[in-house]
Amino acid sequence: MKYRIEKDTMGNVEVPADKLWGAQTQRSRMNFKIGPAGSMPLEIVYGFAYLKKAAAFTNCDLGVLEESKRDLIAQVCDEILDGKHDDQFPLVIWQTGSGTQSNMNVNEVIANRAHQLAGKVIGEGDKTIQPNDDVNKSQSSNDTFPTGMHIACYKKVVESTIPAIKQLRNTLHKKSIDFSEVVKIGRTHLMDATPLTLGQEFSGYVSQLDHGIIALENTLAHLRQLALGGTAVGTGLNTPEGYDVKVADYIAQFTELPFKTADNKFEALAAHDALVETHGALKQIAVSLNKIAHDIRMLASGPRSGIGELIIPANEPGSSIMPGKVNPTQAEAITMVCARIMGNDTTVTVGGMQGHFELNVFKPVMAAAVLESAQLIGDACISFDENCAVGIEPNKETIKSLLDNSLMLVTALNTKIGYYKAAEIANKAHEEGTTLKAAALDLGYVTSEEFDEWVKPEDMVGHR
Amino acid sequence: MKYRIEKDTMGNVEVPADKLWGAQTQRSRMNFKIGPAGSMPLEIVYGFAYLKKAAAFTNCDLGVLEESKRDLIAQVCDEILDGKHDDQFPLVIWQTGSGTQSNMNVNEVIANRAHQLAGKVIGEGDKTIQPNDDVNKSQSSNDTFPTGMHIACYKKVVESTIPAIKQLRNTLHKKSIDFSEVVKIGRTHLMDATPLTLGQEFSGYVSQLDHGIIALENTLAHLRQLALGGTAVGTGLNTPEGYDVKVADYIAQFTELPFKTADNKFEALAAHDALVETHGALKQIAVSLNKIAHDIRMLASGPRSGIGELIIPANEPGSSIMPGKVNPTQAEAITMVCARIMGNDTTVTVGGMQGHFELNVFKPVMAAAVLESAQLIGDACISFDENCAVGIEPNKETIKSLLDNSLMLVTALNTKIGYYKAAEIANKAHEEGTTLKAAALDLGYVTSEEFDEWVKPEDMVGHR
Amino acid sequence: MKYRIEKDTMGNVEVPADKLWGAQTQRSRMNFKIGPAGSMPLEIVYGFAYLKKAAAFTNCDLGVLEESKRDLIAQVCDEILDGKHDDQFPLVIWQTGSGTQSNMNVNEVIANRAHQLAGKVIGEGDKTIQPNDDVNKSQSSNDTFPTGMHIACYKKVVESTIPAIKQLRNTLHKKSIDFSEVVKIGRTHLMDATPLTLGQEFSGYVSQLDHGIIALENTLAHLRQLALGGTAVGTGLNTPEGYDVKVADYIAQFTELPFKTADNKFEALAAHDALVETHGALKQIAVSLNKIAHDIRMLASGPRSGIGELIIPANEPGSSIMPGKVNPTQAEAITMVCARIMGNDTTVTVGGMQGHFELNVFKPVMAAAVLESAQLIGDACISFDENCAVGIEPNKETIKSLLDNSLMLVTALNTKIGYYKAAEIANKAHEEGTTLKAAALDLGYVTSEEFDEWVKPEDMVGHR
Amino acid sequence: MKYRIEKDTMGNVEVPADKLWGAQTQRSRMNFKIGPAGSMPLEIVYGFAYLKKAAAFTNCDLGVLEESKRDLIAQVCDEILDGKHDDQFPLVIWQTGSGTQSNMNVNEVIANRAHQLAGKVIGEGDKTIQPNDDVNKSQSSNDTFPTGMHIACYKKVVESTIPAIKQLRNTLHKKSIDFSEVVKIGRTHLMDATPLTLGQEFSGYVSQLDHGIIALENTLAHLRQLALGGTAVGTGLNTPEGYDVKVADYIAQFTELPFKTADNKFEALAAHDALVETHGALKQIAVSLNKIAHDIRMLASGPRSGIGELIIPANEPGSSIMPGKVNPTQAEAITMVCARIMGNDTTVTVGGMQGHFELNVFKPVMAAAVLESAQLIGDACISFDENCAVGIEPNKETIKSLLDNSLMLVTALNTKIGYYKAAEIANKAHEEGTTLKAAALDLGYVTSEEFDEWVKPEDMVGHR
Repeated sequence: MKYRIEKDTMGNVEVPADKLWGAQTQRSRMNFKIGPAGSMPLEIVYGFAYLKKAAAFTNCDLGVLEESKRDLIAQVCDEILDGKHDDQFPLVIWQTGSGTQSNMNVNEVIANRAHQLAGKVIGEGDKTIQPNDDVNKSQSSNDTFPTGMHIACYKKVVESTIPAIKQLRNTLHKKSIDFSEVVKIGRTHLMDATPLTLGQEFSGYVSQLDHGIIALENTLAHLRQLALGGTAVGTGLNTPEGYDVKVADYIAQFTELPFKTADNKFEALAAHDALVETHGALKQIAVSLNKIAHDIRMLASGPRSGIGELIIPANEPGSSIMPGKVNPTQAEAITMVCARIMGNDTTVTVGGMQGHFELNVFKPVMAAAVLESAQLIGDACISFDENCAVGIEPNKETIKSLLDNSLMLVTALNTKIGYYKAAEIANKAHEEGTTLKAAALDLGYVTSEEFDEWVKPEDMVGHR
Repeated sequence: MKYRIEKDTMGNVEVPADKLWGAQTQRSRMNFKIGPAGSMPLEIVYGFAYLKKAAAFTNCDLGVLEESKRDLIAQVCDEILDGKHDDQFPLVIWQTGSGTQSNMNVNEVIANRAHQLAGKVIGEGDKTIQPNDDVNKSQSSNDTFPTGMHIACYKKVVESTIPAIKQLRNTLHKKSIDFSEVVKIGRTHLMDATPLTLGQEFSGYVSQLDHGIIALENTLAHLRQLALGGTAVGTGLNTPEGYDVKVADYIAQFTELPFKTADNKFEALAAHDALVETHGALKQIAVSLNKIAHDIRMLASGPRSGIGELIIPANEPGSSIMPGKVNPTQAEAITMVCARIMGNDTTVTVGGMQGHFELNVFKPVMAAAVLESAQLIGDACISFDENCAVGIEPNKETIKSLLDNSLMLVTALNTKIGYYKAAEIANKAHEEGTTLKAAALDLGYVTSEEFDEWVKPEDMVGHR
Repeated sequence: MKYRIEKDTMGNVEVPADKLWGAQTQRSRMNFKIGPAGSMPLEIVYGFAYLKKAAAFTNCDLGVLEESKRDLIAQVCDEILDGKHDDQFPLVIWQTGSGTQSNMNVNEVIANRAHQLAGKVIGEGDKTIQPNDDVNKSQSSNDTFPTGMHIACYKKVVESTIPAIKQLRNTLHKKSIDFSEVVKIGRTHLMDATPLTLGQEFSGYVSQLDHGIIALENTLAHLRQLALGGTAVGTGLNTPEGYDVKVADYIAQFTELPFKTADNKFEALAAHDALVETHGALKQIAVSLNKIAHDIRMLASGPRSGIGELIIPANEPGSSIMPGKVNPTQAEAITMVCARIMGNDTTVTVGGMQGHFELNVFKPVMAAAVLESAQLIGDACISFDENCAVGIEPNKETIKSLLDNSLMLVTALNTKIGYYKAAEIANKAHEEGTTLKAAALDLGYVTSEEFDEWVKPEDMVGHR
Repeated sequence: MKYRIEKDTMGNVEVPADKLWGAQTQRSRMNFKIGPAGSMPLEIVYGFAYLKKAAAFTNCDLGVLEESKRDLIAQVCDEILDGKHDDQFPLVIWQTGSGTQSNMNVNEVIANRAHQLAGKVIGEGDKTIQPNDDVNKSQSSNDTFPTGMHIACYKKVVESTIPAIKQLRNTLHKKSIDFSEVVKIGRTHLMDATPLTLGQEFSGYVSQLDHGIIALENTLAHLRQLALGGTAVGTGLNTPEGYDVKVADYIAQFTELPFKTADNKFEALAAHDALVETHGALKQIAVSLNKIAHDIRMLASGPRSGIGELIIPANEPGSSIMPGKVNPTQAEAITMVCARIMGNDTTVTVGGMQGHFELNVFKPVMAAAVLESAQLIGDACISFDENCAVGIEPNKETIKSLLDNSLMLVTALNTKIGYYKAAEIANKAHEEGTTLKAAALDLGYVTSEEFDEWVKPEDMVGHR
């Protein structure tokens, strides 16, 4: 492999000749060989691209950066956002906890690429754009990284996670309406209970997701606050007057998302409770999804020796010889995602609790966990929706058979023949393994017509 | 010990003669000897008292309960809320996961006590009030227990937790203002950085708690929704028309808190995401408090060989021979509370994810965890506030000495003598272990007067 | 209430006249009003009683304590261990993280009670025994508290937890043998699969618990190491030569448990990985128990509309009108315990990771969590065993019906009539909702006799 | 892109023409678009390669597979283990929870590649080797996946994790010896305490890691047990007599690791407590590493305004203008890894607790979490070791200055001039901000010579 020499304050470093990064990125590669290369999420790099462009515009507006430099920086940022330099960001999550090296990676790539755009050759001549003095002007790693991670997480949540949850929610809501006349046995303690409709059961799932979406949206007011302008310790040292508000406005403009400057920059550097807050809502949604998916797979269990009230789509061969063995693979995938998200919540908590003085140095691991959870919930909701939820159908025959066979319907007779006779009927049916109707007729407490008129599960499902 | 005989559908049970509970409570005591007796939080019992009274009023209004019974039930509930029967609720958290036995405990105590209030002797004559038919009328364990736990948790959060956090927040805010002129060294990566004021540092803590309070308040919209009226599976079977709305109104009236009937009763029985949501916010606050308390104890470390920038109150002998050894015991107590709350969050998550079909059967453990966390955060905030935060004072001498001794102030010279000469000064001071000023004068780059005029930490703390 | 005056280096404090504790205990009560009083586990107090007695003996042997004082101290320790002073330890977990105040509580109670035993009146005359100079001789809070908590946790684990798990394990093992001929349908992905015996299914549970017990026992080698002799920072300053080994020997002798002095006292004060290790094993067992209990409740679900393969004991009224509705309340209690233990594991982890320099100051919360988990697992195993496991019976009729009705048995025909014909039979049965046998005969691929001879589930359950 | 047609029981699927996988792999790619492609760890694929080869040999030995097929299968497995087909395994973690699709991916790749090795073209002619009938012979996804994951995790732990921890442990041990004469101030509650040597402080870290390694090794007895031979539900249906023991022997032979067949196959499929157990030990080590790394960064804090007792290597520019600002970046990386591992422990716990009946369907997420943790701990230990620990040096000047300046040394005077005079000295020094010696001389309690002779920190560091 060919190399060129890049320099920083510690001296020379060999960098692969075809790469745009510089000395500090290369040092980080050598010093942090932890886990697979390139684990730093690309979404954060894109967040950086937005903020570097916004900083260049702001610096220019405020008279501390030339227009030509602003335009070069902006041009590279746009290229990055177009995905043209994805292979130029090789660093890992497990670097310095401030993310300094990823900030420098972006600065170096922008500077070198700008040099190329200016028609020059990297490593030759004076740098057209200085990574520190120009690209990083009015900035510090300490305020850029949290800004980049907020941009990345906010975008992911509003553009991927929430729409995906809503898609699944809408399908479940449609099912809830479609199934509104399907009366079935209820189950409490996993035991037979009084009936409800399958639509009612699904409405509970919808309600869970509705609350989850609200909870997640509630966290956005904190997440949209950006640290940029705080520089090294939150005071904004070396930033021009008005910089913080203006740069957030530019970011809002470029991303078309309602970002604003953080009310308190000291918090914005030293604590990442906004990530804790957002991930808390993601974890709540994982709790909901686990409940929903597990219910659905239990309801679809069988086909013969389980509950079998639901039929779910067969997307892959379940068992080559066993017809009807449709494994609830989508439910399995999404509940595994939930397990991951619950773990990520612990990670975010542990990282968040350990900010020290003016800087929390668990930024990369926290941001990566939030991004992963937001991505996985989104993807899993769509996968579960499209490959399972939309195709869910009631097995009406089984549902009816389990309902009719149930002893809980006897409660409908209480008001007609009294509690004790009703209990006697149920008891007889239980002991003899017969139906309620058979037992009731056998005891002579009701006629067949009375039974059919009085014991109507559809009348037991509430004030609809 | 003397016993009397109480009966339920399974037969006779001996109950201590001086206790008001009945057969089902006694069975639970015998069947669930897990952990210390009486671990079911009394707050939940009080929640039940509110709802039993509200149910009695609603049932009466809707024509299904006599006024005389309503009044007897209400009278006992008031006694319970006055703390007169605290020793009548001996059950544990680790019972049935629906909390049925605690519901029965309340029903039995109310019925037996009502019998006494009616001038009769427990166990003699027909029961004046039936525990199931009267006290539990239009109810099920499945909707009463979640209602009781929501009432308990909501009250705890708004009456204890939030006021306590605000009390601490206000003290920290006052300190932030008091310390607004105390310029000190900043620290990032635990290393010396550019200065800020102690007031700015504390303002970050205030901001954390402000966001935490908002996050916690955001969860109340879900928590105030009550399951009551859902009965066994959420359909409201056996409740009179209009019961759910009316009973929630009564609960709101009796508690003077804005409770309302749950939008979806199926969710309200089968999932407890509202508890997950509220506890998520409590956990976020624990994350914040851990950061704040740990910062404060590190800043108060020493007195000689630590950082020593803060002086915290001495509340107990630290070391009998070591003057000035003031252990940060309040910080230790509150960070231990934080560890507990982070654990409780896992418990609530694990409980919440496992609802099955129409009923989540992790109600008692989830509710107990939320109540414990809400109580501990509240108590710990007040303890930390009153025994530590209010008494925090800056050690101005140490703060000044650490600041003046710092090399980071050299950045102030960048714009005067250029980056390279400034770095040369810093380097010389670092290598020779002298002050910046000594090195600067030694190198002849500035005069003493220039140094004093240019290197002013108070000018480096931002656009205040 | 009457008070007497007690003094410490900070001055006078009023203490309730009928209490044995002194000034520092009283200060702690006033300074740490966090959660219910007396939350510090009594087991730790007993651990202290063992170590205070052992220290007195060791100090005497090594010539630094008079025999008369040794005997007085030992006498009070024995009284404490007899439970005679349980009401003298009012402190909470949420005190200083070193547990200093609980150490002083014990020192003060011993000194005051010794004064009484010497025939004097507390508060009058010179103290017969000094809490610091005598009771705490050759000790520091920093080595006594971890010693007390190791003694407490070790005892709890070996005397309560392990025997209880073994009791449940033995019942499950007996069931595994009893059910060794009960062939039933297997379920993978919750879907019907090839058969196994109920005994085999239970043998998996036994194997889980066997591994859990080994894992827990593996942790005891670390847990039995005692910090005592390390004093303030681990160096053993102010202890006589040979003290650490000797005092551990005495503790081993008094407790009849194999305690030994810690190999490294610096670790023993500054880190509590031994608690992390032990709780990790408790958490593993909770994982196992959750699996087992949840399986059992699903297998017992119904009675009509669930799986219904197991019959579990009815310990309390499930539903007054619904015969056969036996709620799996013991499974619910134990799975709630599991949720608690999983949360406690997070607490122990968070506490353990935060040791700073020479002292971890999360001792009380870590020890309390380990003790709670060890107690709850033990109690829950016994409760589950005695109130559920011993009474589990197979519902042979249901088991047979579900098995015979299953389509998975068709795999037995593969080797007889070939894969494709077998699949054709299964497919026909699935589509027409008939049995395999009916489909097979209908297709004419086998005779009735052949089917009965070839399709024998009992031949499909492995090399037994 | 060019495609070829592959078939399974559900019909035709288009597969990229240059890929070796078949229909079921392709279906999984389409049905599970969750997170980045190829997230299933390659280590598990390699685990499969070992087991497929071992199964082929065993099947051949037991007479159910031809030698020629055995050899072809083995040849492909060897190619896979040589890394020649890494791009043929595109599936994600978030698939079916049994990992069936990854098992099929391996089966399909082996079969198609064997067809090539036999000189034929994929998709043309009868398959030389059948993916199900040959490659998967005597196997099921349900026993192969847990076998593959045990092989992968065991190898990772013993080949990467443990050696890496030992490497760091050995460096810390060497430092402990090197620093055995460096007497320094101790710190408890973060406050000044009696002295110890820096070597003693480091010996505590060594002891933590020693215990962690033992704990991790203790888990290997469970982890080395392999499910293979259990087939679908644990009974071993369709395996030849003796298969399970023999196949485990082959795996042991091929991997040169002590694998054995699981004592209980029902547990081995239905529960993954072995992973819970191993991850519990990894989590314990993360707890230890967090303590160690955090101590080191606090000890290295400064250079002027922190503690500054340690000098750590400067691996990258910390601050361009601030000499001596050496950020503890390696400590930050490893503590972020610890946060991740603590989160992974929750994931493994949540996955492990949810096995249902004969199959736990959280296999991929559990295995991936264990592998990630094992890899990250290993990598982070080596990175921390090589880039930080080996270069740690004491800042003897600072250490001495903090020690001499400390007031805790006064305890050395207790036995010479009595407790009260000693305390008076300390008090005076504290109030006047002077040294102990100055105060002592000023009070006239000791001579300068006496002070120097009596107050020797090196005599206060224990029975070494």
